[in-house]
Amino acid sequence: MDEIKLAKVENVRMIDRYNTKNPTVGTLYLTATHLIFVEPDSNKETWILHMHVASIEKLPLSTTGSPLLIRCKTFLSVTFVIPKDSECHDVYTSLLKLFQPVSINKLYCFNYQPAKDDFPKNAGWDFFKLEAEFKHMLVPNENWTLCSMNEKYELCDTYPRQIYVPKEATTLMLISSSRFRSKGRLPALTYLHNNKASICRCSQPLSGFSARCLEDEQMLEAIRKTNPNTDYMYVVDTRPRINAMANRAAGKGYENEAFYENIKFHFLGIENIHVQRASLQKVLEACEQKSPTMSAFLNALESSGWLKHIRSILDTSSFIANAVDKGVSVVVHCSDGWDRTAQVCSLAQLMLNPYYRTIKGFQALIEKDWLAFGHKFSERCGHIQTDAREVSPIFTQFLDCTWQLMSQRSESFEFNERFLLILHDHVHSCQFGTFVGNCEKDRLDLKLAERTFSLWGFMANHLNEYINPLYKPNVDESIKANLAPQCIKFWRGMYSRFESGIHPREPLGDLLLDSKEHCNSLEDHVQHLTKRIASFKNYISKSAKKLQDATSNTAKVSKEPASAEINDNKYNYDKKLSELSAADDDHPLKASNMSFASLSLNAEQASAPQTLPEEINSVAVDWKPMRNVTTCSCSTPFDQFTKKTHCWRCGDIFCERCIDKNVALPGHDSGKAVPVCRGCFRQMQMQKQSP
Amino acid sequence: MDEIKLAKVENVRMIDRYNTKNPTVGTLYLTATHLIFVEPDSNKETWILHMHVASIEKLPLSTTGSPLLIRCKTFLSVTFVIPKDSECHDVYTSLLKLFQPVSINKLYCFNYQPAKDDFPKNAGWDFFKLEAEFKHMLVPNENWTLCSMNEKYELCDTYPRQIYVPKEATTLMLISSSRFRSKGRLPALTYLHNNKASICRCSQPLSGFSARCLEDEQMLEAIRKTNPNTDYMYVVDTRPRINAMANRAAGKGYENEAFYENIKFHFLGIENIHVQRASLQKVLEACEQKSPTMSAFLNALESSGWLKHIRSILDTSSFIANAVDKGVSVVVHCSDGWDRTAQVCSLAQLMLNPYYRTIKGFQALIEKDWLAFGHKFSERCGHIQTDAREVSPIFTQFLDCTWQLMSQRSESFEFNERFLLILHDHVHSCQFGTFVGNCEKDRLDLKLAERTFSLWGFMANHLNEYINPLYKPNVDESIKANLAPQCIKFWRGMYSRFESGIHPREPLGDLLLDSKEHCNSLEDHVQHLTKRIASFKNYISKSAKKLQDATSNTAKVSKEPASAEINDNKYNYDKKLSELSAADDDHPLKASNMSFASLSLNAEQASAPQTLPEEINSVAVDWKPMRNVTTCSCSTPFDQFTKKTHCWRCGDIFCERCIDKNVALPGHDSGKAVPVCRGCFRQMQMQKQSP
Repeated sequence: MDEIKLAKVENVRMIDRYNTKNPTVGTLYLTATHLIFVEPDSNKETWILHMHVASIEKLPLSTTGSPLLIRCKTFLSVTFVIPKDSECHDVYTSLLKLFQPVSINKLYCFNYQPAKDDFPKNAGWDFFKLEAEFKHMLVPNENWTLCSMNEKYELCDTYPRQIYVPKEATTLMLISSSRFRSKGRLPALTYLHNNKASICRCSQPLSGFSARCLEDEQMLEAIRKTNPNTDYMYVVDTRPRINAMANRAAGKGYENEAFYENIKFHFLGIENIHVQRASLQKVLEACEQKSPTMSAFLNALESSGWLKHIRSILDTSSFIANAVDKGVSVVVHCSDGWDRTAQVCSLAQLMLNPYYRTIKGFQALIEKDWLAFGHKFSERCGHIQTDAREVSPIFTQFLDCTWQLMSQRSESFEFNERFLLILHDHVHSCQFGTFVGNCEKDRLDLKLAERTFSLWGFMANHLNEYINPLYKPNVDESIKANLAPQCIKFWRGMYSRFESGIHPREPLGDLLLDSKEHCNSLEDHVQHLTKRIASFKNYISKSAKKLQDATSNTAKVSKEPASAEINDNKYNYDKKLSELSAADDDHPLKASNMSFASLSLNAEQASAPQTLPEEINSVAVDWKPMRNVTTCSCSTPFDQFTKKTHCWRCGDIFCERCIDKNVALPGHDSGKAVPVCRGCFRQMQMQKQSP
Repeated sequence: MDEIKLAKVENVRMIDRYNTKNPTVGTLYLTATHLIFVEPDSNKETWILHMHVASIEKLPLSTTGSPLLIRCKTFLSVTFVIPKDSECHDVYTSLLKLFQPVSINKLYCFNYQPAKDDFPKNAGWDFFKLEAEFKHMLVPNENWTLCSMNEKYELCDTYPRQIYVPKEATTLMLISSSRFRSKGRLPALTYLHNNKASICRCSQPLSGFSARCLEDEQMLEAIRKTNPNTDYMYVVDTRPRINAMANRAAGKGYENEAFYENIKFHFLGIENIHVQRASLQKVLEACEQKSPTMSAFLNALESSGWLKHIRSILDTSSFIANAVDKGVSVVVHCSDGWDRTAQVCSLAQLMLNPYYRTIKGFQALIEKDWLAFGHKFSERCGHIQTDAREVSPIFTQFLDCTWQLMSQRSESFEFNERFLLILHDHVHSCQFGTFVGNCEKDRLDLKLAERTFSLWGFMANHLNEYINPLYKPNVDESIKANLAPQCIKFWRGMYSRFESGIHPREPLGDLLLDSKEHCNSLEDHVQHLTKRIASFKNYISKSAKKLQDATSNTAKVSKEPASAEINDNKYNYDKKLSELSAADDDHPLKASNMSFASLSLNAEQASAPQTLPEEINSVAVDWKPMRNVTTCSCSTPFDQFTKKTHCWRCGDIFCERCIDKNVALPGHDSGKAVPVCRGCFRQMQMQKQSP
């Protein structure tokens, strides 16, 4: 879809928090999908996706015009000062309509078209199948079975169609337990460890002050029995005790240890979505203070409670992971079991299983514990106009906790910080259908797989941007979080990433990855050159021998057994040699313009007389230093978030868009396809066509 | 000096804060210089230099023995539980005597001997000459002159002998100003910028409530006049106004703007040494809390004020740097002008001049603004038994501020975090004489340059450990600190560096440096191989021609002009060829065992028949991955602080001690000397000797 220009306002001043003194003047464009600010002098463009806008505020008129403060879900915060108040009002009201549509069908994903040939619409939608993920854990097995009762979402409409339950669980138990649980979210398997300990998730029981449900009790006992190694299991209520108590008045509550056999019940004290929303709000306010003192900032950070909440989520996740690691099964719930439960179940799995610390595994984890088990993305992210009290940064916290683990155990994660940022931003962008809707049923009803592109398909095309160069696969089976307060850090890379001057931080990981690739290329080239030299050595020694024979006795030469020599050399110089030594004056190689190049391939590969120079020139030895480059040759400016990639053939630097070809270079021994720029690709094609 | 075993205690349990559950059991040795704990099972040794001990505390007897809590100036904090109380008492009393000698002559530096051949005793003592540093700034010049009046420390015994003052300053002005300033520390030049703006430093004037000194006023005016570009200058009193006011009652104080012409006077509010000492103490307590909540830690960090003080020092330094950058000279003082003044003058220079951001420049800055201008290292670091109220982490704060700048502008610094840590630890270790004593005069009196080794000499031998791979020389002329509170960070790498589990952080910079070196080696090797191939190509094409000629007409050959071909090929294969084509059957190359190897060097270089394999094998193509290696081949275990280095010849990994040879590899085109391990060095020597 082309960007339709809805409005264009000249002489707009853009002010960011740390650059209040020197606002940049430019033109503001309001398109159907983006707000775009163009600075004519610096050729710099700031694009703000409407879907990323969190709030718009019209500030009091100033001497230079009407300021419009825009806060984004990406934590960009920017003020545009528009000369005429009427124009400002127009932009303001247009944005209000655009940034949060009333109907889910107006979301960006239903219009979004990737650049031509980028990837097909169906790519990614079939990457993760729940059955495959459970098969990965060897489920179904003798203890666990696939329950078909939710095929049409009859048991629970916010659960996936496939749910895995103990083999022992009867239909009655499943139905009764579902009825006895908030929103019908009965206990279902989400993770089975290799020691038979499992993580099951559900919502709170409707126990009130005294209600009980025998079948629900039997259900939990059935779960416990799937793990023959211990005679008890944990039931983790992630909520603070007082919240759970309060729920009893509403007929909900928690498991009574007196009724449930063999369970050890724990409250773990993670606050609810409202507390988390307010907390993030306070963090952002702390960052937005005009001229804060150190104490004011530290106090604001402390009193926001954000790091406390992050630590609390990690703490609960660690509790679950440790229990499972020691062989004890855990049933987890909070209130409805789709926020805190999603956080701690997925984080516990991240700690327990190295698979989930790969790019693919992490996506699978999100598919399973967030998408399939019904985390309400559209409500929590405020995709459409909805109750503001439903919005909460639950998924952001999950990414934050993942980042904390990553900072502590960098070698255990296949992905980097950019991967988390891209995930975060696309969960909110609605550019892809992946995170639209509140549960699996919603997404099926919306036919998203047919109507929209998948984020997983997009990401599969950009994997090399997400690689952590420090990753060592399987270095740890399970990892533990260090929960000392000194180890829980404020994630500047997420919440302060747009604050200019704050992040001159070099993407050290990117530089390392690039340097390693350069090494790989050179190693490969050295292998090739060394083999070449070995061939020459072979050729020359034989040649000298032949020459000796030739000069001493020219007549003998034609009797040499040429065929015996053909196979001991990859490049078959010896064949040439034997042909040469056949001393036929009409032989083409005897012509006076005979050059080495014509020797470099055997007779069968007659196409490339210039092979050797091509081989040598096909591998860039020097790579252009990365950090001085500010724009790609396609004139895309590089910012701190874009990945720069070297062309392995010319050594120049390009943006991801301009490096989309992978071919084998003649100068590499391995024949591995490597990234080349479009120019080099064309040249190589031409060389192939014109022998 | 050999370590003399004073005591050996078996079955000691070592407990660190994060490992209270699984103490390690081992043997504790008390030597003349170190406390050493050896874990027999893991072959791990913990060495604590007595000089690094900050405090020793005998804790109440526990069931397993007597605990001895040792806190170090390196921020290591460790508890040894000694089975017998009497033994614990012995260790305790011995340590008390050893860790802080009464006499300065008992310091470690007077006994320390580096490993044989490491570096000579005089190395480093002459690296930095004050005259040279000022010549660097083009001083003396038409405005500034070297004052000889302090040659014997008559003007000020805590100043250097050479001081630079305005040419206009008369003897009377210098003497009177010196007498009117606390401790005689008259205003003297420390930095002259390229725009004639300067930084001068001094101590507070003895102005009391009304005293004035005309000559001191003239002195400041003389300083102002050295900079003809502005008609005023700043006088920066780094203290909070209230502190300066209080000093007036003691006959000290600050400059009265009414008396001093053309000055703009500013208080800048850095707290005194006592506040800073207490603040660091609180930081350490915050880190030592038993099971702190997130809030408890953040509150403790905030109320310690540490980050506030760091920011305040950076803020004042920025003020000075900005003024100088804009062409306004600044005179800086605090009370005595050797703590806060040293901090802000040196940090301002660090911001202003890229030279001070190199390894050498940073050391020169310390030599000038800390050592020459009399920062009282021995008192502030508590080298010997002294008034505990004199101890204060002033230099540590300077390093912390440098680290803050480094984190913000990583590409502007030649050195890395390790460089700062090593500096910090050796300022306290007294292993080198460099930081012993309280001023230049002290160090001369102690004859340190003759009696002790210099830290600069030691560091010169380890430069490759301090390199920041992101450094881009001269990328910025001057740099600015971002003082937003979000940008001022708690330096875990310094204060929490021994907390196990906190720093699984990979030394990403080291890995990048290593990878870049690997690239360099491979590039060099590719150049070499490519040239080799070019030679072969040349040889083969000529050889083919010759062969053709030879076979068609053997008689013609000897008439070929051989000499013309010798010079167009580096390796002179053609000479061989012409010899070959001379068709002399007695020629040695005509022997049937003739091999390529004998062709590979010209006749003059007859020594190495095996050159080509040697060339190819002399460059390691694959380098051993760094992060799996836990010990060097010399069995030194690698910890997070030791630098690992690859041998460029074999690609194996060694500690700095084992890689002390640099030689040119035959397979490199550049002929540059590169690091090789001892084994490879020996092999190469043997190859040279046995042709």
